[in-house]
Amino acid sequence: MIELAENRYGKSRVRLMKVTRHAHDHDLREWTVQVLLKGDFETAHLDGDNSKILPTDTMKNTVYSLARTSKATAMEDYAKELVDFLLGRNPQVSSASVRIESTMWKRLTVDGEPHPSAFMRGSGELQTTSVERAQGGNFHILSGLDNLVLLKTANSGFEGYIKDSLTTLSETKDRLFGTAVTAEWHYTSPDLDFDAVRTNLREAMLRTFANHNSKSVQQTLYAMAESALEAVPAINEIEITMPNKHCLLVDLSRFNQDNPNEIFVPTDEPHGYIEARVRRKS
Amino acid sequence: MIELAENRYGKSRVRLMKVTRHAHDHDLREWTVQVLLKGDFETAHLDGDNSKILPTDTMKNTVYSLARTSKATAMEDYAKELVDFLLGRNPQVSSASVRIESTMWKRLTVDGEPHPSAFMRGSGELQTTSVERAQGGNFHILSGLDNLVLLKTANSGFEGYIKDSLTTLSETKDRLFGTAVTAEWHYTSPDLDFDAVRTNLREAMLRTFANHNSKSVQQTLYAMAESALEAVPAINEIEITMPNKHCLLVDLSRFNQDNPNEIFVPTDEPHGYIEARVRRKS
Amino acid sequence: MIELAENRYGKSRVRLMKVTRHAHDHDLREWTVQVLLKGDFETAHLDGDNSKILPTDTMKNTVYSLARTSKATAMEDYAKELVDFLLGRNPQVSSASVRIESTMWKRLTVDGEPHPSAFMRGSGELQTTSVERAQGGNFHILSGLDNLVLLKTANSGFEGYIKDSLTTLSETKDRLFGTAVTAEWHYTSPDLDFDAVRTNLREAMLRTFANHNSKSVQQTLYAMAESALEAVPAINEIEITMPNKHCLLVDLSRFNQDNPNEIFVPTDEPHGYIEARVRRKS
Amino acid sequence: MIELAENRYGKSRVRLMKVTRHAHDHDLREWTVQVLLKGDFETAHLDGDNSKILPTDTMKNTVYSLARTSKATAMEDYAKELVDFLLGRNPQVSSASVRIESTMWKRLTVDGEPHPSAFMRGSGELQTTSVERAQGGNFHILSGLDNLVLLKTANSGFEGYIKDSLTTLSETKDRLFGTAVTAEWHYTSPDLDFDAVRTNLREAMLRTFANHNSKSVQQTLYAMAESALEAVPAINEIEITMPNKHCLLVDLSRFNQDNPNEIFVPTDEPHGYIEARVRRKS
Repeated sequence: MIELAENRYGKSRVRLMKVTRHAHDHDLREWTVQVLLKGDFETAHLDGDNSKILPTDTMKNTVYSLARTSKATAMEDYAKELVDFLLGRNPQVSSASVRIESTMWKRLTVDGEPHPSAFMRGSGELQTTSVERAQGGNFHILSGLDNLVLLKTANSGFEGYIKDSLTTLSETKDRLFGTAVTAEWHYTSPDLDFDAVRTNLREAMLRTFANHNSKSVQQTLYAMAESALEAVPAINEIEITMPNKHCLLVDLSRFNQDNPNEIFVPTDEPHGYIEARVRRKS
Repeated sequence: MIELAENRYGKSRVRLMKVTRHAHDHDLREWTVQVLLKGDFETAHLDGDNSKILPTDTMKNTVYSLARTSKATAMEDYAKELVDFLLGRNPQVSSASVRIESTMWKRLTVDGEPHPSAFMRGSGELQTTSVERAQGGNFHILSGLDNLVLLKTANSGFEGYIKDSLTTLSETKDRLFGTAVTAEWHYTSPDLDFDAVRTNLREAMLRTFANHNSKSVQQTLYAMAESALEAVPAINEIEITMPNKHCLLVDLSRFNQDNPNEIFVPTDEPHGYIEARVRRKS
Repeated sequence: MIELAENRYGKSRVRLMKVTRHAHDHDLREWTVQVLLKGDFETAHLDGDNSKILPTDTMKNTVYSLARTSKATAMEDYAKELVDFLLGRNPQVSSASVRIESTMWKRLTVDGEPHPSAFMRGSGELQTTSVERAQGGNFHILSGLDNLVLLKTANSGFEGYIKDSLTTLSETKDRLFGTAVTAEWHYTSPDLDFDAVRTNLREAMLRTFANHNSKSVQQTLYAMAESALEAVPAINEIEITMPNKHCLLVDLSRFNQDNPNEIFVPTDEPHGYIEARVRRKS
Repeated sequence: MIELAENRYGKSRVRLMKVTRHAHDHDLREWTVQVLLKGDFETAHLDGDNSKILPTDTMKNTVYSLARTSKATAMEDYAKELVDFLLGRNPQVSSASVRIESTMWKRLTVDGEPHPSAFMRGSGELQTTSVERAQGGNFHILSGLDNLVLLKTANSGFEGYIKDSLTTLSETKDRLFGTAVTAEWHYTSPDLDFDAVRTNLREAMLRTFANHNSKSVQQTLYAMAESALEAVPAINEIEITMPNKHCLLVDLSRFNQDNPNEIFVPTDEPHGYIEARVRRKS
């Protein structure tokens, strides 16, 4: 006999651009929203009975309709409103989650002044949040960032590791350290100035990345996580993933040239993969 | 106080192409391998002590070295060898996992005959496996496929769903149903003819997708999972994700034309997202 | 003083899926269309006067409206209709061009039989056409294909090339030869069975790629172009681009292993780039 | 009879990262280089005779070797050195071209100060150059930028265009105007402070984009080109491509809500495509 276990459904890649028109300038937000619902959907799967199914097209409409009425400026607060709305209208739903990715836009500077209504796309870094709540339960908020591409040209080495018959890597006191940080942290409260907290946390991680005397990606990742937890009391744990995007020193000795850590080949694959969760001791 | 919780590291995107040269023709396999290790790595994170760290560069070398000696033809068997090798040489590692994605290559047919040494890239579908084992433990093997893009032009409707103030979708007895299937199933034994089992399972899912009289993505997904479990006794559960890649009927009435389900706009975003795990009742 | 030189505008990425419903089965075509117009648009650029501008939104509507009435099965014929329609209604347009890329879909085989209404996405290869005509002029039709990914594991070497102080490549009589073919050919007539001609031409190129005893990418490219021109009298020239997607032999001697052309690393970058136009002598 | 017409070959996607180590800080450049050669390569194509072929692998080595000795800071100057070197050593080459794309990296600011050795990836905008020279000829230098993603939320309308039976677009005095600028301009001299000129030209285009009262993409494109030519006497023509990346106003009236130009759906496809070359009158 066969049975349905965990299941969920929803709408992905609902793209929303919201322009807030102030007296003297405009604000611009671009959010890509995913809505996912869990609940009592067994008859849909087994019998083709859609009477408990909220169409994903309606979820899309809900994203736009609530974006118009919402006063939220932080995406975490807007996500909470969406979750509340969906749970309130759909008793067959046991739990709703909303994930938002925010695209970077920067106000243009023209003749030394911030322009009121012209913007330039920033880097490929995304700010993210995942807000989930069960019927009658509390919010669980994981915010984060993705694809924060960093590189340091000093204060990074890698020595003292295991050598065996398959080792070909040379030890080095001075290498390039390139990565694309993904991080996700858990808020202990659902009511925060999320944007301010995010800025503090991100700056703490950047400062540590820049200043750390790195003996490995693991050590720098841990130091960045530690600095985030120290900078932001409102989080109790953070998970960071930092691929090691290798920049290979070119062997110019074949051409009778030296290469004093100057000429490198940046590579995308293969890459190291380092991931850890760091938390406050309870 | 702050502490290290779960952590792991390894090498991603190690690309391997293996040519097996038989007397009369060649076989070609292209695998992209990821190796991840868990273990006693706290001193690396906290102290920058790399003495328990097997470099990810060495993992890459291991992938190539073992590919040369391995007799495995199924990627699951090769992944098992890699896991065993890494656990055997690294007592500080508590658990090793290897994930492989296999790229589709098809032998060229020339003048009606299969060519011995010329190949064409197949579709973007990937065959996958994730093999994990703890020191002294048993293999846990999740195999799957990804990005199997399907579309049916008949026997798909969507009716009887919830209508509310945000509903704009029309009910339909006849729509296009496009998706990109991701599936992952768990083998109850580590010793199987993995390639033969995979072929059976995939064909069962394709047959059900094609023939199912679909009242929703959920119902077809469940039917596909059920047929996989019925076709392959060696699995006890399967998880399937099937986005609903909408093909929108173009409104030609604005131009005084009809559109009898003939002219559509295929779209990538937003898309529905449907996911379920289906298992044998124990 | 400053002046407007060449200019054109239009609509890109207009995605069209057309389902043709026969008595016993359905046909499926997915075309991505680009429309570009040249003409008398100087007042739009200089004065912001849009009175000669056909909106690109209207071009999109035209694609869908004509797709409904068109009887064409080959995309070249449909492109010709679009060009004629746009030129006929817009005297301010001096020349119109339509480019179409056709996505590969394959009918599913179920229980050994072709299924009437279920399809699977094929490879990432695209079939292309670019049809252009000036007011009162003749059609200029360039059809082609893109991203035809091929690999041969025998009958490819590279020797006898220039050696200088920057040479590190070793000569080889036996290497893998991987590429992603782009080709574009010019039809001498606007009235052809385009799909039949395309099939012949593509098969001629595939046969030559598979059977050619390759001394370089250049030589194989030329041989493929030659076979296309020989197979299809209706073309008078063909341009082919064939990157050399290197598969690097892994040096296993570092681990006391041999590697008899068996274990390779496929790479995407850097890659060789080889391009040539081959034509009938006039 | 069949003959070889135009042909060229070379190496693409040669990735170079150069770290310049000053006393107090480091500079970082990431360039992706393409080298293409034209010349006397007929025997390679027809006879498989490689004696006039400089391997593309050697071109790659040349990129790295010259990067070490080069004093150039602007990529245009480095490209000129590469072209000269290749022409000087290869008399069989009639013309060499080098194209470089420069990736955006920004120095990290830590505690309000620029950090000497830590960097963050900037936007996806690329700075580009294409430098070509024939044996005995002059340099032809086309520099440019690609994927400069801009959006303005005011001062953009689209009215007064052609209406016909396929028109569904509404006229508007106030729309979002989003684009991804590609531009390429031709230098009249090979000896310039290329980086300074580039900065001036780019700022002129950005200022015009921000301040222009746009009646169409065409008009704004022309104004941007004009401002570039006015700002930089060292160029005599510029070609700009500006897709119209539509942001669609969401119809909230279906939900009894207004939408005063606040809630939009950003879309990638289909998109408008506008391209023009603007030059000084001679």
